[in-house]
Amino acid sequence: MSNSTIQTLVWGEYRHEKKNPKVTALYPDGMHEAIAAALRKEPGLSISTAWLDQPEHGLTEKVLAATDVLIWWGHMSHDDVSDEVVARVKTRVLEGMGLIVLHSGHYAKIFKSLMGTTCSLKWRESSDKERLWNVAPHHPITAGIGDYFEIPAEEMYGEPFGIPTPDELIFISWFTGGEVFRSGATWQRGNGRIFYFRPGHETYPTYHHPQVQRVIANAVHWAQPTVCIPDVCPNSPALEPLPVDSEAAQRSTEGHR
Amino acid sequence: MSNSTIQTLVWGEYRHEKKNPKVTALYPDGMHEAIAAALRKEPGLSISTAWLDQPEHGLTEKVLAATDVLIWWGHMSHDDVSDEVVARVKTRVLEGMGLIVLHSGHYAKIFKSLMGTTCSLKWRESSDKERLWNVAPHHPITAGIGDYFEIPAEEMYGEPFGIPTPDELIFISWFTGGEVFRSGATWQRGNGRIFYFRPGHETYPTYHHPQVQRVIANAVHWAQPTVCIPDVCPNSPALEPLPVDSEAAQRSTEGHR
Amino acid sequence: MSNSTIQTLVWGEYRHEKKNPKVTALYPDGMHEAIAAALRKEPGLSISTAWLDQPEHGLTEKVLAATDVLIWWGHMSHDDVSDEVVARVKTRVLEGMGLIVLHSGHYAKIFKSLMGTTCSLKWRESSDKERLWNVAPHHPITAGIGDYFEIPAEEMYGEPFGIPTPDELIFISWFTGGEVFRSGATWQRGNGRIFYFRPGHETYPTYHHPQVQRVIANAVHWAQPTVCIPDVCPNSPALEPLPVDSEAAQRSTEGHR
Amino acid sequence: MSNSTIQTLVWGEYRHEKKNPKVTALYPDGMHEAIAAALRKEPGLSISTAWLDQPEHGLTEKVLAATDVLIWWGHMSHDDVSDEVVARVKTRVLEGMGLIVLHSGHYAKIFKSLMGTTCSLKWRESSDKERLWNVAPHHPITAGIGDYFEIPAEEMYGEPFGIPTPDELIFISWFTGGEVFRSGATWQRGNGRIFYFRPGHETYPTYHHPQVQRVIANAVHWAQPTVCIPDVCPNSPALEPLPVDSEAAQRSTEGHR
Repeated sequence: MSNSTIQTLVWGEYRHEKKNPKVTALYPDGMHEAIAAALRKEPGLSISTAWLDQPEHGLTEKVLAATDVLIWWGHMSHDDVSDEVVARVKTRVLEGMGLIVLHSGHYAKIFKSLMGTTCSLKWRESSDKERLWNVAPHHPITAGIGDYFEIPAEEMYGEPFGIPTPDELIFISWFTGGEVFRSGATWQRGNGRIFYFRPGHETYPTYHHPQVQRVIANAVHWAQPTVCIPDVCPNSPALEPLPVDSEAAQRSTEGHR
Repeated sequence: MSNSTIQTLVWGEYRHEKKNPKVTALYPDGMHEAIAAALRKEPGLSISTAWLDQPEHGLTEKVLAATDVLIWWGHMSHDDVSDEVVARVKTRVLEGMGLIVLHSGHYAKIFKSLMGTTCSLKWRESSDKERLWNVAPHHPITAGIGDYFEIPAEEMYGEPFGIPTPDELIFISWFTGGEVFRSGATWQRGNGRIFYFRPGHETYPTYHHPQVQRVIANAVHWAQPTVCIPDVCPNSPALEPLPVDSEAAQRSTEGHR
Repeated sequence: MSNSTIQTLVWGEYRHEKKNPKVTALYPDGMHEAIAAALRKEPGLSISTAWLDQPEHGLTEKVLAATDVLIWWGHMSHDDVSDEVVARVKTRVLEGMGLIVLHSGHYAKIFKSLMGTTCSLKWRESSDKERLWNVAPHHPITAGIGDYFEIPAEEMYGEPFGIPTPDELIFISWFTGGEVFRSGATWQRGNGRIFYFRPGHETYPTYHHPQVQRVIANAVHWAQPTVCIPDVCPNSPALEPLPVDSEAAQRSTEGHR
Repeated sequence: MSNSTIQTLVWGEYRHEKKNPKVTALYPDGMHEAIAAALRKEPGLSISTAWLDQPEHGLTEKVLAATDVLIWWGHMSHDDVSDEVVARVKTRVLEGMGLIVLHSGHYAKIFKSLMGTTCSLKWRESSDKERLWNVAPHHPITAGIGDYFEIPAEEMYGEPFGIPTPDELIFISWFTGGEVFRSGATWQRGNGRIFYFRPGHETYPTYHHPQVQRVIANAVHWAQPTVCIPDVCPNSPALEPLPVDSEAAQRSTEGHR
């Protein structure tokens, strides 16, 4: 599936932008649109968007079937995402679709469901500078990012972060106020790749930051599917001779599940 | 919390035993009772049991609060376990309670919810011999188990097994019919330790097997809680001086979540 | 560094082939040449070879500097590989070069040095059939390989295998004689990717097997470098104001190391 | 092997203390002795010490055979540790002995040999405050440590740290000057447990810090051996019938290695 255009869907909650003038000023067309606009400059990607208040949150079976990588930003309305749609997205990730979860998406149903843990953390809305240290300089997600990059003001997220041990730790953040955080991390779940990336509080211009945009674009390339394998749990005949077992032969042959 | 008695709760579905005479013959008091009986011979453990058809499946808040390690066997009735009780058990695991999931429990709601994946596999009810190779001879769970042990006849489970990469791989099974399987594996999730152990189809006397009993007893010791930490997501004041930011000072101080 | 030709170097011990007529018959130009011949059919790869009895084992600074992925087969003469060349190869792997270690290379100095463990295992030269189960169907290394593939006769390698827990487990082998083995596994070490692949005893035509060839070709693509970062351990000035500390100011400013 | 006294050996380079008056003032009997003195207050441990300038660095076969957990501090004289002794220590770790590596021991031969990587990092001798965040509150190594603890002045170590992905990440440090570091991490290697713990520059009173002492004591308990398994690579007879193979029968039966 590589070497072709990556069908990328940017999903946003798109509510803060309509209610909070400060957010509107920063993201007049929505945060998802700012993320999408940056990605549209990338070769090899085809970008579309969806948001919470669309029918089925814009995440119909058809849309998801055509999506290679899904980017998710949510915050104030996680509970308004229907369980049916969450299950649908999860199925696609486990089949092979890539998933990039941003910032407050740590508490999104889809992220919690894939992690299996609390995904809790410390937080503070304040004037912290965030410096993201690149702890995986070999990783495709950090291509073009040097030793670190800085965001002048961001919400603080602090450890402990209630996640399973990541497969790969990509960024660790330093905050002015004295905290640290695992700000970039990857997990393989089923056939899909997942990347969590911390920055992006709605009251800051974080998604206009060139290195934040670079990381997200890199992550889209990294997360593209290698396969699409639907879930099965097959009754599987023996490949080698089995001992004769008259008892077993007598057992019911009805389906196991 | 170590050095004291480990409060161990063996949970069984307890339905096959009432319906299938072959299972009744093997486990007249239920599979959970066979598992419990073996554990009662272990020093340092206090054993109780619960099953599906009890009120709240025997897993009340009070019972779970007093449980250090929960052992889970389910098969034909996973869907009859209430979501509320599953959420309750999950909360306790993430707080620190140990969880041991047996055999067909790979498809239990609680296991799937903690893993975040399909937990699917290949299977065959047949007359395979299973040989479990010890690939972690240093691990407390394999204490007293040699290079391998054998079960004369068992249901086959085969790869691929739809789990996240285990923290520690403990056993790999060889089956006569030609398959392999990751038969023992551990995961840390939140503050709790999880062990999946494959053997134990209801139509075989597997839970009377001394080495199966040894592994389960070892796992109870290994999985005992080190802490009990309820989930929090605190607003956290700065520990170091922050730059003055009049904008930030003006921002709403209402709760983040 | 992607999207360009991958400079691939196949290194062979090339001694069995000169001493054992059976091996000569199977691999008249050497095992490395059989591996190389298959890779030469792959688009995007540029293939060269080297062997033990060349000056510097064919692994000069210049050759290694121009190598993206190194494939290693050794068996009877691990001790004849000079420590200096091993250190050179290791430096290149940690900088970013890919390394694919085959079969008895589990005991090669370079593999043991990168793993840090014994790399020991069980073994038997016999007539076992080997069935390699694909436990990572999403992984680029298994592209085009189905659920499993078989090698009609191979040397047996059995668990426990003295390796660090792999980052990704790719294949598990089933052997007729009753053993299992982690036959394909990956590790990130520094900036380089490492893949160990079990099959390939010298007295069998294993490197003429199409699926063995497929896996090796896939692994070359997977292991290609993303970066080349030389090792440094820099004295690093503060990025934020430090408290005034007259004691510290008086301390020697001579190099730390 | 649990439930008995843990034979703990504290190894120090013991050279700075004789040359640098500031270090002498802080550690008049050597840094190893300060570490040992704190451990002597712990129930269940038996403490001895050794240092570089003793015969065989105090690490004879006999001493190591009687050691359960070895603590290592070295800095200016890593190259003076003989390769023979390093190999001896490594053998014991892979057999099951615990190893705790402190601070500048990141560059000790034994640590680099077990990790297989550069173990490089950023550093600065300065007046940074270090705050170590506990990212594994469930882990026995952090028992009694709260959310974090602080060291008023320490040498800075910064990312990227050239280690393999830890099995468990325990602490992440925040430094005043703007850096972060994976300050506590564990690895299983063979049958032995390894813990790296960052603090402890020789010109600071770090090993008199009660929480540093607490962590080291916890780590000794955690790292105690579960087994002692010497390295073997056995020729292993088949456990199941093999197909008749006259060719194989004709092959040399001489030892494989």
